[in-house]
Amino acid sequence: MSRRILLSNAVVVTMDAERRVIHTGSIGIDNDTIAFVCETGAEPVEWRHVETWDLAGRVVIPGLINTHTHAAMTLLRGYADDMALMEWLEKKIWPFEAHLTPDDVYIGALVACAEMIRSGTTVFADMYFHMEGVAKAVAESGIRASLSRGLIGTAAQAGEDDEALREAVRFCERWQGGANGRITTCLAPHAPYTCPPPFLEKVVDAASAHDLSIHTHISETKDEMAQIARTYGGSPVKYMLRHGVFKRPTLAAHCVHLDDEDIDILADNAVAVAHNPGSNMKLASGVAPVTKMRDRGVVVGLGTDGASSNNNLDMIEEARLAALLHKAVLFDPTAIPAMDALAMATIDGAKALRMDDQVGSLEAGKQADLVVLSTRRPNMAPLFDPVSNIVYSSNPGDIEHVFVRGEFVLRDGKIVAFDESRAIEEFRSRSARLAQEAKS
Amino acid sequence: MSRRILLSNAVVVTMDAERRVIHTGSIGIDNDTIAFVCETGAEPVEWRHVETWDLAGRVVIPGLINTHTHAAMTLLRGYADDMALMEWLEKKIWPFEAHLTPDDVYIGALVACAEMIRSGTTVFADMYFHMEGVAKAVAESGIRASLSRGLIGTAAQAGEDDEALREAVRFCERWQGGANGRITTCLAPHAPYTCPPPFLEKVVDAASAHDLSIHTHISETKDEMAQIARTYGGSPVKYMLRHGVFKRPTLAAHCVHLDDEDIDILADNAVAVAHNPGSNMKLASGVAPVTKMRDRGVVVGLGTDGASSNNNLDMIEEARLAALLHKAVLFDPTAIPAMDALAMATIDGAKALRMDDQVGSLEAGKQADLVVLSTRRPNMAPLFDPVSNIVYSSNPGDIEHVFVRGEFVLRDGKIVAFDESRAIEEFRSRSARLAQEAKS
Repeated sequence: MSRRILLSNAVVVTMDAERRVIHTGSIGIDNDTIAFVCETGAEPVEWRHVETWDLAGRVVIPGLINTHTHAAMTLLRGYADDMALMEWLEKKIWPFEAHLTPDDVYIGALVACAEMIRSGTTVFADMYFHMEGVAKAVAESGIRASLSRGLIGTAAQAGEDDEALREAVRFCERWQGGANGRITTCLAPHAPYTCPPPFLEKVVDAASAHDLSIHTHISETKDEMAQIARTYGGSPVKYMLRHGVFKRPTLAAHCVHLDDEDIDILADNAVAVAHNPGSNMKLASGVAPVTKMRDRGVVVGLGTDGASSNNNLDMIEEARLAALLHKAVLFDPTAIPAMDALAMATIDGAKALRMDDQVGSLEAGKQADLVVLSTRRPNMAPLFDPVSNIVYSSNPGDIEHVFVRGEFVLRDGKIVAFDESRAIEEFRSRSARLAQEAKS
Repeated sequence: MSRRILLSNAVVVTMDAERRVIHTGSIGIDNDTIAFVCETGAEPVEWRHVETWDLAGRVVIPGLINTHTHAAMTLLRGYADDMALMEWLEKKIWPFEAHLTPDDVYIGALVACAEMIRSGTTVFADMYFHMEGVAKAVAESGIRASLSRGLIGTAAQAGEDDEALREAVRFCERWQGGANGRITTCLAPHAPYTCPPPFLEKVVDAASAHDLSIHTHISETKDEMAQIARTYGGSPVKYMLRHGVFKRPTLAAHCVHLDDEDIDILADNAVAVAHNPGSNMKLASGVAPVTKMRDRGVVVGLGTDGASSNNNLDMIEEARLAALLHKAVLFDPTAIPAMDALAMATIDGAKALRMDDQVGSLEAGKQADLVVLSTRRPNMAPLFDPVSNIVYSSNPGDIEHVFVRGEFVLRDGKIVAFDESRAIEEFRSRSARLAQEAKS
């Protein structure tokens, strides 16, 4: 039997192709699907008596899409900050990560899912290890995710890299379409500097054989640029192109250091980019040429990166940083207006994950993934421009409800599907244990 | 009779000279004053039976200090964004402001006070007009403020400028020390480009005669730099120096475009700076040389600027932007670490307003202005470094209580001193009316 809900009297920010904002709008939800979006009062007659939620004083936006994170790194939030990059990685992050168990990753990802849901995210793209734990957290929390095991081709022990690749493929086979279709999977050669040509080509072959897309890091730091130029010649983008990566649908995180030729290659190969302004600023990696990429037709989504380099998973903040940062560095107050920033956090993120037939905007036929924000707090008043208020003025405290597949995952500010307090309690004791182990 | 409260079992971020963080700490509050800060259990015996609040799982920080805003511009939030600066001012902001009545400014400032209190601010420095309304809002809401009427020496009508100066002085006489000492006042020559030499000198003379300090804007945009160089020769900083402004204790907002000589002048004259990263980014004004100023000994506080160019009054966000922006533009992940960003938002802001004998840190003898943040939400877990979590991971939804002068102004997330919903309702209708009037 069909379960129908009608949301009415809301400001509806559709993020459809016309970027329509309906000031008194209704959304009909039929099971997991949006049946229609219209002016309140113009609903089909057969919807007159369904369960109705009066959302007067609220703004509804599509669920936010975090195109790049490492969810379980919430366990490392605040463990080490404001340090030089290599010292930070070698002395702090890697020794901590070395002790992570599959259960740690599960709990870390579960708390990350709670944080993402609370801040309006309904889809995230993750790259990490012990991915069974991440899949379990996604299944349990009700969120969607594109999951991949990070693959490195520089292991000390013979055969280790190949075994990781086989494990990654098995993970994809097991979880593709899992959790009622909320989970998709892909392969994740970590980065040009950690994947030598033979290994990279093996990963691409596996992706082709299993019809999988690619999630990777490209051109994040100046050090990477120098290392790739020194080792292989040319840029990281050209290195990935040369070894066939872009034959597969590719999502490239960061893309901070690009020349015009690199941007042309990304555009011509339909490589999508996950822009991570918060992480790039905090690690002082540089400022990605986002306006140039967008002008050239590259799809650019937004990502938070891991909580150890951000240090939160709030996608509205990421949209705001994108809107502010590019204005500042380009000396152009019209760069990345609020609507473009919100598009990057929604529909463009969906395109980057090749899920825009399913999510990313509020339109009939798409999945009912949406966020309801209150406008009753002072920071949301007045409401001249709902999109401006969301991008520049809102914070996670304004988010009341979040739906995925037409079902509440956050209701009246409370996580629906699991015991959040208990998860956080266990999370705290695990992160404390890991910090102890990292020291010894 | 003395009213005593004991806060216990909290993580206390003192922001004292040693930047002590007490992991299980107590704060004794005696009427409006902090009696002591110590490890929980080490309280003086006579405090054993006073009213005690168990703040386990909370972090307490000093009240945040917003060193530069135009509170009533909340009425213009989201009215116009992402435009070129002069078009934005001439076509949108000024026509709107032309219709503001004293009551509009009062309601605009009252809603601004609610937003600031909700986001942990306990002191703000304001420059605007119809300042009686702002003073009334401050008195009513329980917050502190340093208030000044913006003064422009380029009025079309003869005598208008002088009358404004007289009005400003009368305002200071009436409100200095008002609202139980929560209000201080100063004079605000608006900016070098709006204050020709004779008028500027009159303002300085009045400040000397009435022992008032100065709040002004300096070197905000490249246009200002060019205009001052063309009209008077040299930089805005030198222009202000030449006309005696810095003989008075001065707070200079923005200071984006400074050369080394300008920075020396600010340091040598103990001019304090209000850095407004959000506004400077959004208006694409440039990036202030904050690390250089701090290295040279200039006191740098943080400000939100008005809500029309930010578009919120959240000081934690401002601290985060300061921490992120300077790392990004300097390619230095160690620039403005979290502790420095929080210092700018607290004790350095207090120094900038010459109130550091009263507020800005949690120390015996200072006023009991403090903020209690919950750590129960996922974004605040784990808590390896409370200062890092506050600056990089918290949001206004984490703030539970705010005290000013030992009294609740926010309690369990609710504004204590006035009917916030009613104020916002009236605010909405006034901002709608103003937008109508601005069009006609």
